[in-house]
Amino acid sequence: MVSKKESDQKVIKKIESLAKDVINEINKEQNPEVKFPLRGLANVHFDEKEQVIKMGNKTQSRVFFNVGQAKKFMQTFLVAKVLKDLIKQGITTPIRSIYYNSKHVIADTKEETWTDQSESDPIIEDLEVTLNALREELHIRAGAKGAMVGNLTIIDAGDRIDLRKMGSGGWSVPSIVENEIIQFDKCDAEYILFIEKDTIWSRFNEDKFWKKNKCIILHGGGQPPRGVRRLLRRMHEELKLQVYVLVDSDVYGAYIYSVVKQGSINLAFESLRMAVPKARFLGLSAFDFERYNLPKSVVLKLKDVDIKRIKEVMNYPWFQKKEWQKELKYMLKTGVKLELEALSSKNFKFITEEYVPQKIRNKEWLD
Amino acid sequence: MVSKKESDQKVIKKIESLAKDVINEINKEQNPEVKFPLRGLANVHFDEKEQVIKMGNKTQSRVFFNVGQAKKFMQTFLVAKVLKDLIKQGITTPIRSIYYNSKHVIADTKEETWTDQSESDPIIEDLEVTLNALREELHIRAGAKGAMVGNLTIIDAGDRIDLRKMGSGGWSVPSIVENEIIQFDKCDAEYILFIEKDTIWSRFNEDKFWKKNKCIILHGGGQPPRGVRRLLRRMHEELKLQVYVLVDSDVYGAYIYSVVKQGSINLAFESLRMAVPKARFLGLSAFDFERYNLPKSVVLKLKDVDIKRIKEVMNYPWFQKKEWQKELKYMLKTGVKLELEALSSKNFKFITEEYVPQKIRNKEWLD
Repeated sequence: MVSKKESDQKVIKKIESLAKDVINEINKEQNPEVKFPLRGLANVHFDEKEQVIKMGNKTQSRVFFNVGQAKKFMQTFLVAKVLKDLIKQGITTPIRSIYYNSKHVIADTKEETWTDQSESDPIIEDLEVTLNALREELHIRAGAKGAMVGNLTIIDAGDRIDLRKMGSGGWSVPSIVENEIIQFDKCDAEYILFIEKDTIWSRFNEDKFWKKNKCIILHGGGQPPRGVRRLLRRMHEELKLQVYVLVDSDVYGAYIYSVVKQGSINLAFESLRMAVPKARFLGLSAFDFERYNLPKSVVLKLKDVDIKRIKEVMNYPWFQKKEWQKELKYMLKTGVKLELEALSSKNFKFITEEYVPQKIRNKEWLD
Repeated sequence: MVSKKESDQKVIKKIESLAKDVINEINKEQNPEVKFPLRGLANVHFDEKEQVIKMGNKTQSRVFFNVGQAKKFMQTFLVAKVLKDLIKQGITTPIRSIYYNSKHVIADTKEETWTDQSESDPIIEDLEVTLNALREELHIRAGAKGAMVGNLTIIDAGDRIDLRKMGSGGWSVPSIVENEIIQFDKCDAEYILFIEKDTIWSRFNEDKFWKKNKCIILHGGGQPPRGVRRLLRRMHEELKLQVYVLVDSDVYGAYIYSVVKQGSINLAFESLRMAVPKARFLGLSAFDFERYNLPKSVVLKLKDVDIKRIKEVMNYPWFQKKEWQKELKYMLKTGVKLELEALSSKNFKFITEEYVPQKIRNKEWLD
């Protein structure tokens, strides 16, 4: 286990070396320059071998003596200084507070350091990539959503928490789940079930699904936040647990699955630490409507925006597998989508007692 | 403590008596009728004495032999039957699942029981009012957001959970927190701090604010869901704890405060079981900008929609106190709003170590 101090010291050293390079350049009377890996679609590709979205080798550079770049250059070091302070103080803070903390009028001018947060967030992402440190390692907190229970004991900030005894509410998944804060203890789970919606997760928890099926259940309150994704990855890797994904049968469900599995375009530089390439899609499948003989009245018609998005997603390299093309084409053909709640047209326990156990037993998942 | 069974039996009896009345009317060859308290603004008033938003005495009636009402009459009993089944099975379900479960084509017609969920939700609310039972007592689950830690031990679905040992994540507040599921055990907290945002809550938890200040800290992920409001009310009432509210200085923050304190117009029939009339508004106040000498760069300009909403809220009877009128007028005068994160312009611990403790010590709150 990397101690909190050790990881912190590493990041501080990297920040200081970034600054020292600039000072050296100044001493040599050169134009100070910082190089960043280029972010965004232009520098992103799907790595077929590792099955994740990855960042390429293109870089961009930011120099001090350049009218268009001087402000961003200054902003980069302004944020780097705040991050170093946070680490030294041993505290974490929301990304929005970093913006406020470093916002001020530059001395002897009327110019502010930031106009709004849309300026400071990309600078923070630049630093993440350059320092090769997750946002969490920079002591920056994102929003927290999601809860977890199951056959696992964890240590969270020094407290031992038995996730088998977390009642109806569960343990609230924090934003920062790095090894320095969260460690895994006794585990007798055989897999992880990741559920899109909190209300459905509660149904599973109420039935003690995790106890009967020896597993861990986790939701991310819709599109899962960073903490939930990172935790899934860590449990998959360190506890060697398979991840099954349960989402609505619509393009947003498919996209949530793909973000868990391959990572996202915006955060491609983090895929290797956030994605779970072996995650399996359990459902709902577009074919479940017929497979389970559901009543016609539970389907929802696709809207134009759904159709447009399905066509987009069909073109992503990581959706090229035959089964996924079949799935998405069938959505377009039938013109409908299906929510997890629709399974309650059978009965309220159908999803916990039949649908999920059967799918896992019969290996009816998509890769 | 009312046992789960006892509360359930009460509700089942009420549902059955609703049905029996109708059968009696049919036997007497009368037009079957159900009476509901009228919901909405027309039947809502602010009770000055109890300081909550309350429902009035107006009722509406729904009869079977009426082209405009027959369908709703049928829908009412359709839902009542599902609720009775849920209670008998001892399970809870999301409101959306009730819609799906009871959606079908009516025999020998092409008519569906529901077109969409906007039809079934009001019927459920009608039943809540008529049966005088909280949605939670009808075994219906809403979305869950929010987390809690502090000097309190609870029992959740039979599991004893020490909220002093919940690490960085905390206990995730479920949707249903009635006495049958959540009970309070050892409490050595002196008050409850309710915080609007999860990221700010995490800052308080990281500093172990609740330990130093002998309290409980709770967030609701923005506008707090039913579970969080009901829990605040129960802790206030049963543990005799004062509730302090910490929100942004904008009209949405003020509104969140008012919902916690007086209830909401839509759910006026639940105010007496959800609202905390003695809750105190700790901040941010519109006057904090000057009081704490914050830099000009951290304020946000009011948008037109903010100004419109402030003027609306100023007219609500529950915002008529002199101090609140002063607060809202000052927002309009300065034309700015202020977020909790803005306090980090002082330093990242200012909010936990100075702002909140000082405000409580110096009794600088609004009622």
